[in-house]
Amino acid sequence: MPLPEIQKAIRWHPPSYDIRVEDVPVPSIQHPDDAIIKVKLGALCGSDLHVYRGHGGAMINNKIHTCGHEFIGEVVALGESFGAKAEGRPALYSSLKIGDKVVSPFTVNCGECHVCRLGYTGRCPDGSLFGTPALEGGQAQFVRVPKAGGTLFNLSNPSTWSSAMPESLKEQALSKIADSSLLMLADILPTGLFAALQAINHPKVAAVITGKPWPLCFSQNVTTGNEVSLLESDKVLTVAIIGLGPVGICATVSILDILATRNIPFRIVAIDPNEARREKVKAVYDAIGPDGKGTGEFAALSIDEAKIKVNEWTNGVGATAVLEVVGNVSALELSFELVRTFGVIVSVGVHGESLLPMTTRQIYGKNISFDFGRCPSRAMFPLAFDILVKRQDVFGKVGDPASLIDRIVDFSQAPESYRAFDKGEIGKVIFDPWK
Amino acid sequence: MPLPEIQKAIRWHPPSYDIRVEDVPVPSIQHPDDAIIKVKLGALCGSDLHVYRGHGGAMINNKIHTCGHEFIGEVVALGESFGAKAEGRPALYSSLKIGDKVVSPFTVNCGECHVCRLGYTGRCPDGSLFGTPALEGGQAQFVRVPKAGGTLFNLSNPSTWSSAMPESLKEQALSKIADSSLLMLADILPTGLFAALQAINHPKVAAVITGKPWPLCFSQNVTTGNEVSLLESDKVLTVAIIGLGPVGICATVSILDILATRNIPFRIVAIDPNEARREKVKAVYDAIGPDGKGTGEFAALSIDEAKIKVNEWTNGVGATAVLEVVGNVSALELSFELVRTFGVIVSVGVHGESLLPMTTRQIYGKNISFDFGRCPSRAMFPLAFDILVKRQDVFGKVGDPASLIDRIVDFSQAPESYRAFDKGEIGKVIFDPWK
Repeated sequence: MPLPEIQKAIRWHPPSYDIRVEDVPVPSIQHPDDAIIKVKLGALCGSDLHVYRGHGGAMINNKIHTCGHEFIGEVVALGESFGAKAEGRPALYSSLKIGDKVVSPFTVNCGECHVCRLGYTGRCPDGSLFGTPALEGGQAQFVRVPKAGGTLFNLSNPSTWSSAMPESLKEQALSKIADSSLLMLADILPTGLFAALQAINHPKVAAVITGKPWPLCFSQNVTTGNEVSLLESDKVLTVAIIGLGPVGICATVSILDILATRNIPFRIVAIDPNEARREKVKAVYDAIGPDGKGTGEFAALSIDEAKIKVNEWTNGVGATAVLEVVGNVSALELSFELVRTFGVIVSVGVHGESLLPMTTRQIYGKNISFDFGRCPSRAMFPLAFDILVKRQDVFGKVGDPASLIDRIVDFSQAPESYRAFDKGEIGKVIFDPWK
Repeated sequence: MPLPEIQKAIRWHPPSYDIRVEDVPVPSIQHPDDAIIKVKLGALCGSDLHVYRGHGGAMINNKIHTCGHEFIGEVVALGESFGAKAEGRPALYSSLKIGDKVVSPFTVNCGECHVCRLGYTGRCPDGSLFGTPALEGGQAQFVRVPKAGGTLFNLSNPSTWSSAMPESLKEQALSKIADSSLLMLADILPTGLFAALQAINHPKVAAVITGKPWPLCFSQNVTTGNEVSLLESDKVLTVAIIGLGPVGICATVSILDILATRNIPFRIVAIDPNEARREKVKAVYDAIGPDGKGTGEFAALSIDEAKIKVNEWTNGVGATAVLEVVGNVSALELSFELVRTFGVIVSVGVHGESLLPMTTRQIYGKNISFDFGRCPSRAMFPLAFDILVKRQDVFGKVGDPASLIDRIVDFSQAPESYRAFDKGEIGKVIFDPWK
């Protein structure tokens, strides 16, 4: 079936705060590695607001472009690279078919360079971010995906999923998961999981998790004759999550899932000054089934309450790990205050041109680790998808206090949705391009 | 045998650059957990220069005090806590004996609080740094060690060493290791090993080491159908070591040993603007036997040469890990320039009150991790001792191009040694209090 020539798209106009719905040409294959996706749903993400406000890249050349880096859809056209087995190329070049349901990460990645082979797909040298002057976004009826065999995740083909996903979940994934749920994969769930995995796998967390002191935590068979055994209370992981937007909630669900799966006892405080967001994370926590909750305490608190709680839980020592999901200086200051000596701060917020609000002596003096950066979303998909399917008790919710989606609207509501989302008046919005 | 009443000690006088050898009282047991050590050798360390120059704590109250935080010696008196088995206390309280040879970390640590149980001994809340106004140092004939059952490492008793050390090495350790070699344990070898271990165990290094892409590197049994296999060249760890003072050399020996033991291929560049230091690290590298050298390339280069070399080795990608062993802003700038996207910078240098010389956006944009802080020296002793004994091809050298010790002098040469060491005219100096 030939594609139409003209489509509707949500477009950014310079200099800022000017979103229009316009008729634009439907994209076509420009390179053999391209795929054209008919978008089923496209979402509005907090980081779209950088473009909306005219910050950074958007201002450089004031280029009018289609917005959005979160979308799922159906493959409607494929370039010539697809269909033949190509040695050393991602398997999707041979297996992806017209009609397959796919989700894209928020950045393109080739999947085959040194950086991608290592799984650092969010920083592929050939990558671009959808919904910027560099690459037309997914808040449209159709979108072109470059390097599609490396970039896309095939929701129709379980052979490209995590081998750890049980067959029963695979069947569920193929038949029962709502598109609005699958859309969480594009950015927010992998990014939340990225924060959680960096913390859990950090060397400074290893002593608590392994129950062996630093540095014996790295060489499990080694003992010495002088260390004092850890108490059960030493093995409780204290985690603070700062920022309870959609990514913060996904980080919360992800770390709970990992801790439950690995049977690690914990105390988690989820922090946001916004009461509605705290209520949301509480509803999400309540909705999680016992297999995803693990063994530990959970509290959603304001900043001041959280300081008191962490102090009380740890006798003034502080949190082992802090997940900073905001991306500004005051969140980093709070992270530094809450984190323990020998703790780790994982920051997945998109930061501006600020300096770290503490001196190198302060960082040295507290033996702190920082892990900053953008999620390698494509590389995270299989593990994130596993959690998405397993945690349908949360991600399956729509129009419920525990739902991460505030509303699904048609394109005519895009300008108003951007405005209200920017003002914090509404939560996550999904656009249906065909409504 | 009763202790003398008066001893010689190297003393700091306010406001700065004033080192005197004086007669002072021999310390006595002040608390049941104390031990008195007859010092065999005490060393001068780069971080003693902070005090020498009158920076930081030394200036606070201008208190005259005995210098030095690196010393080994023999137990000559023990407090009442020693000798009886005390449940939950470090084993040394029951096993340490008069006459045992011991080494102390540069900080006191109780060994039994929450922080110490986790192995973060360098940050024990009851800890103090030797050779500061808070605690008389070890550049004396006798020194008092508080919390001695938690603090000291018993070089005479293999039951308190690493269980990984082979019996043959234990015998060698008991009989054949020079005191000047054992002194490396007090600070510089554990600190160098601390830098190396943090890098090797960091999640951002896991993909290279495991040969599985992020995040599958954390869950070895999981596969997905789309990742491209890593090439052998992807599995080569590129490490830059910045600063080739004694700690930088220990970091180099340590990371080489770990990479050799674990059979991880590497490229290491050791960087210092000072040619004599580069020659030293080359001599050290040449002295290392094949079992400690592993499989990889090693170069000792100036800053500009190193930038070119890392670029050439990695096709412009950068080093997977950077060990920053200097502790100033320009070393951090160089680290940031050399490190790859998704790389880790481990900083064990003692930093001043500077801000990090890059913005949060730059750190986010490169997905960098930082690990700062002071070595938990006591916790590192068993593993560091293992390397010390194994690597006598390096640490056993005295008065040789590969020796980490420049000279062993008597106390009368202390003022001149401090001056010359501060000016960079001489390398590491050891004081013999009885010469």
